[in-house]
Amino acid sequence: MNTPHTPLELPATDQLLVDGVLARQLRPLARTITLIESLRPDHRARARRVLEALLPHTGGAMRVGISGVPGVGKSTFIEALGLYLIEQGLRVAVLAVDPSSSVTGGSILGDKTRMERLSQNTNAFIRPSPSAGSLGGVASKTRETLLVCEAAGFDVIIVETVGVGQSETAVAGMTDIFCLLQLPNAGDDLQAIKKGIMELADLIVVNKADIDPRLAMLAKSQIKSALAMLRHSSPNWVPPVLTLSALKQDGIAQFWGEITRYRETMQASGEFESKRRDQAQAWMWELIDAGLRERFRENTSVKHELPGLQQAVADGHTTPAAAAHRLLKYLSEEH
Amino acid sequence: MNTPHTPLELPATDQLLVDGVLARQLRPLARTITLIESLRPDHRARARRVLEALLPHTGGAMRVGISGVPGVGKSTFIEALGLYLIEQGLRVAVLAVDPSSSVTGGSILGDKTRMERLSQNTNAFIRPSPSAGSLGGVASKTRETLLVCEAAGFDVIIVETVGVGQSETAVAGMTDIFCLLQLPNAGDDLQAIKKGIMELADLIVVNKADIDPRLAMLAKSQIKSALAMLRHSSPNWVPPVLTLSALKQDGIAQFWGEITRYRETMQASGEFESKRRDQAQAWMWELIDAGLRERFRENTSVKHELPGLQQAVADGHTTPAAAAHRLLKYLSEEH
Repeated sequence: MNTPHTPLELPATDQLLVDGVLARQLRPLARTITLIESLRPDHRARARRVLEALLPHTGGAMRVGISGVPGVGKSTFIEALGLYLIEQGLRVAVLAVDPSSSVTGGSILGDKTRMERLSQNTNAFIRPSPSAGSLGGVASKTRETLLVCEAAGFDVIIVETVGVGQSETAVAGMTDIFCLLQLPNAGDDLQAIKKGIMELADLIVVNKADIDPRLAMLAKSQIKSALAMLRHSSPNWVPPVLTLSALKQDGIAQFWGEITRYRETMQASGEFESKRRDQAQAWMWELIDAGLRERFRENTSVKHELPGLQQAVADGHTTPAAAAHRLLKYLSEEH
Repeated sequence: MNTPHTPLELPATDQLLVDGVLARQLRPLARTITLIESLRPDHRARARRVLEALLPHTGGAMRVGISGVPGVGKSTFIEALGLYLIEQGLRVAVLAVDPSSSVTGGSILGDKTRMERLSQNTNAFIRPSPSAGSLGGVASKTRETLLVCEAAGFDVIIVETVGVGQSETAVAGMTDIFCLLQLPNAGDDLQAIKKGIMELADLIVVNKADIDPRLAMLAKSQIKSALAMLRHSSPNWVPPVLTLSALKQDGIAQFWGEITRYRETMQASGEFESKRRDQAQAWMWELIDAGLRERFRENTSVKHELPGLQQAVADGHTTPAAAAHRLLKYLSEEH
């Protein structure tokens, strides 16, 4: 298989979607994303074909992950940032990863009125989190949506998440820079450290600095000393800590300045490109592992024996190795 | 499959091993472990049968994980602890997980002279790390060896590892309590935090406290404040920090006192048993995932296509989803 990227002959309806996305039309863009989010196998197959066709046109955006606990002011911040970027002549897409959205009906970005001014701007595109169940499923669809938005010519893609833990790893794994919004409270940083979110951050923002600037500076210095204890992925980048006020739109330009400095630093060292390569490969293996597990669980004998064997392992009546061996053998006998 | 634990009719040679282990004889014990460590498929099958037969006799030991960087005094500490426990009338086994041992020829426990007095004691059994390649492989064999040692009536099983990162997670996943040895230096705790080892620790020991007691107390208080920031798995246990001197055999009894207190606390809350159940199930899934990946990689078409597709994914010429889909399809077409 020397040419995995051979252009395919697309069915006319799919070609229309591809052409529409590349022409930066909103309706084909939204339709393609709906196709991606669909669970129907025929839709999945179409989505794969459309994505393959769009792929040569992806990669051009800056992918920015943003996280923070409820109440930190994420919507206000993203709206202020989005409007600032549009003023600079850029087009901005806002996506979300919220694994709870299928239960709660969307706790973030479910309601466009949260970012009223941004959502009415023709250079902005806001899409709530897919509600496809598991974190892996939600994240995978958001990754694909991100690629479609790149093909549609958006210059900056913001991926928002909720700041409670696991979904942060997923978002950090699909963006170029992961930004953490913090409250100007002592203690908010401790929560982020305990949840393992702080160590993912490439850039930290203390928001609501207008309320009590002295407290915000204190929070900043506490975060700085906490960061000194945590490992960070790049040897060429010390995560900066900024204070700003999204509400007063004060500090947004400095924030974007740091993002630009990060991009330039990472591009100069080659880490920008290698991070994207690693992310793509890790994503492929995640999908393979999930697919292998799914096939495993669908095997008739496995389905029948798994509950009993899991119980036996937990009760110490059989070893994990013997149980695993027995279950894996069913796959070979399948046919 | 309602009776996964039905006793099997064992071949005579295997029954001899089982009887010998249960009779607490050292030679059958060592032979069984050699069988477990063997990579030959027929040996693997025999090892599984022997383990199944021994399983009802396992679970009785206190499983203690011990980690710390080279130079912290792990051998001296384990020897002092082992001799102390033997004095209390207990039998002690010392195992190791060292994924580097296949390369270096065994950086820990390769040389029994490191624990000369303990290794000569008839109530002690010391086994170096298996050298089976990947961390997963090494850890899996050590887990099985741990079960064999329990069937052989050892009361305490110490599993040592090297203090560099990944192998700590494996050891914490197979023991009841995970202990971290630290040097009385400012900075040693930061290293442990950065490597993610500190958050695994149920008990922390500042060794070599005899050299400079004041410095040891300072290290202790630094570790205590660092611990306050980290998440810990049990709501009923705050990891204590002890200072001791393994060389002077000073503090060993207190150390064992904390282990006993931990065991009693965890047993009272039910966490002791539920942790072991979770560990066994997690181990089963690890083995299943590893087995699924192995089968996947052995598929002829996958073998042929994987390198090209991996490259195409990294280069952005195909999407991770399309590559994963294509590779997984080969498994269905296999037959």
